[in-house]
Amino acid sequence: MNFINLIDYAGTFAFAISGIRLASAKQFDWFGAYVVGLVTAIGGGTTRDLLLNVTPFWMLQPSYLIVTAFALLSVILLGKYLIRLNNTFFIFDAIGLGLFVVVGIEKSLAAHFPFWVAIVMGMITGSVGGIVRDILINEVPLIFRKDIYALACVVGGLVYYACFQFHVSPVISQIASAVSVILTRVLAVKYHLSLPVLKGHDDKINS
Amino acid sequence: MNFINLIDYAGTFAFAISGIRLASAKQFDWFGAYVVGLVTAIGGGTTRDLLLNVTPFWMLQPSYLIVTAFALLSVILLGKYLIRLNNTFFIFDAIGLGLFVVVGIEKSLAAHFPFWVAIVMGMITGSVGGIVRDILINEVPLIFRKDIYALACVVGGLVYYACFQFHVSPVISQIASAVSVILTRVLAVKYHLSLPVLKGHDDKINS
Amino acid sequence: MNFINLIDYAGTFAFAISGIRLASAKQFDWFGAYVVGLVTAIGGGTTRDLLLNVTPFWMLQPSYLIVTAFALLSVILLGKYLIRLNNTFFIFDAIGLGLFVVVGIEKSLAAHFPFWVAIVMGMITGSVGGIVRDILINEVPLIFRKDIYALACVVGGLVYYACFQFHVSPVISQIASAVSVILTRVLAVKYHLSLPVLKGHDDKINS
Repeated sequence: MNFINLIDYAGTFAFAISGIRLASAKQFDWFGAYVVGLVTAIGGGTTRDLLLNVTPFWMLQPSYLIVTAFALLSVILLGKYLIRLNNTFFIFDAIGLGLFVVVGIEKSLAAHFPFWVAIVMGMITGSVGGIVRDILINEVPLIFRKDIYALACVVGGLVYYACFQFHVSPVISQIASAVSVILTRVLAVKYHLSLPVLKGHDDKINS
Repeated sequence: MNFINLIDYAGTFAFAISGIRLASAKQFDWFGAYVVGLVTAIGGGTTRDLLLNVTPFWMLQPSYLIVTAFALLSVILLGKYLIRLNNTFFIFDAIGLGLFVVVGIEKSLAAHFPFWVAIVMGMITGSVGGIVRDILINEVPLIFRKDIYALACVVGGLVYYACFQFHVSPVISQIASAVSVILTRVLAVKYHLSLPVLKGHDDKINS
Repeated sequence: MNFINLIDYAGTFAFAISGIRLASAKQFDWFGAYVVGLVTAIGGGTTRDLLLNVTPFWMLQPSYLIVTAFALLSVILLGKYLIRLNNTFFIFDAIGLGLFVVVGIEKSLAAHFPFWVAIVMGMITGSVGGIVRDILINEVPLIFRKDIYALACVVGGLVYYACFQFHVSPVISQIASAVSVILTRVLAVKYHLSLPVLKGHDDKINS
């Protein structure tokens, strides 16, 4: 297991924990919480792989299912104590997001799609899991209203593109892109930055 | 850019506007509204392309992302004034729907599926975007309860099939099919036609 | 039409009825109820086939659309009387579930995936339809909170795997696996067995 694997598992764990904890607030049973945690962790990458027409990544090795099982076990055993670790999870989650975005970009480029598709796929990899999680617990997806989440993925994609244009080496590009995602997230949460809310039109239109 | 492109962009714009406006009623931020608008515009065609196992259409050219960006900009800049244009949007939306249905049918036939699959794909192309939009804003999908929307897509499919059976030329078939979708929609909304509501059984069953 | 077909249609019918009845409780129109019934019946297998990258099963023959139409017709004509048949539907539903799980497992093995993927696909085949149904009617998915549904699919998968390890013949393996799903469901409902609920943490975390 190398360094990238370690980050990948930490990110998966953090994503799964976020799904399991929100499921527990809705009185889901253990198995339901496991499914929500798993979907949060793998939903983005699965959507990306279906769009790219490659085998979904989690079907190639069971580690994502196992990491999610550990996440469920942690919440069952340590529930109350985990709440104190919110900041730790936030950091895991941000690091995982950075990695997921980079993986999404590189898989799309490897499948010979242009850069703008790769940037969209980076965003899909990072944010679709959280959207499906919120649909499953029957809430309006959080990331549409708060905290610059999907946009952080786009920032990472643009940084990757800039590195590519200036012939930066792949490793440096990956690090710069992931770090820009993480920094955007950390700054947005720390300073409560958000995008403007679109002014409400409470009429519904016919469609 | 030819005439079909023009209709395609107008339809995409109208679908995106419907998503963005409903998102704004839920206090989504700009990026969240953009995503909802995009999913409304491309969700149906993306589902169709995944089922047909072809590359999703919007990954082949960036125009759908750009048209959606213009839709967002319009709502941000012109919000209040757009409401007065409801009828214009309704017409765009109906024309877009007619086109989307025809595209869905022809793509399915080109992939060598039988006609009944093509009719279902026409319906999926026209209506899944609106369904996913309503799921994202956490509402019961409108089209299941009102205004003969999905059924208009099926009418278009049946007209296309009738034209085929009578050896009508492709161009005339396309026009007849699209016009039948548009007419069904316009008549349904103008005369408040809807399908019967299924009588409520308020018991829930075990499943 | 052989015996397997018969079970397949009975299961499809029972799944569709469950979707149509829940849709009717939300005042859906006939077509909306049909769509919800169809998605309940074919949603699991469609998700499986997209993940396995094979043509969705219902696009190869129109029987699933026809069976769903009969289910809609039954609810329209017999609505009130159907309620008395709850136990019959529960048995159909359980038998259909057993068959769907076995089909999901065998299709995955035929596509050369390992056993743990096949077990997940058996579960997806059996339970995703009900999850999408509940999302469409804007409720928190029932199976995450009640009655050991998805877990029954996993039990069936483990029994199939055990049969395989002990070189049991395919037909016996299929029957043992399906029966174990059905028994788990029947016992869970009869004796109100459920998994523990995950303790609620009503704080929301930043992600």
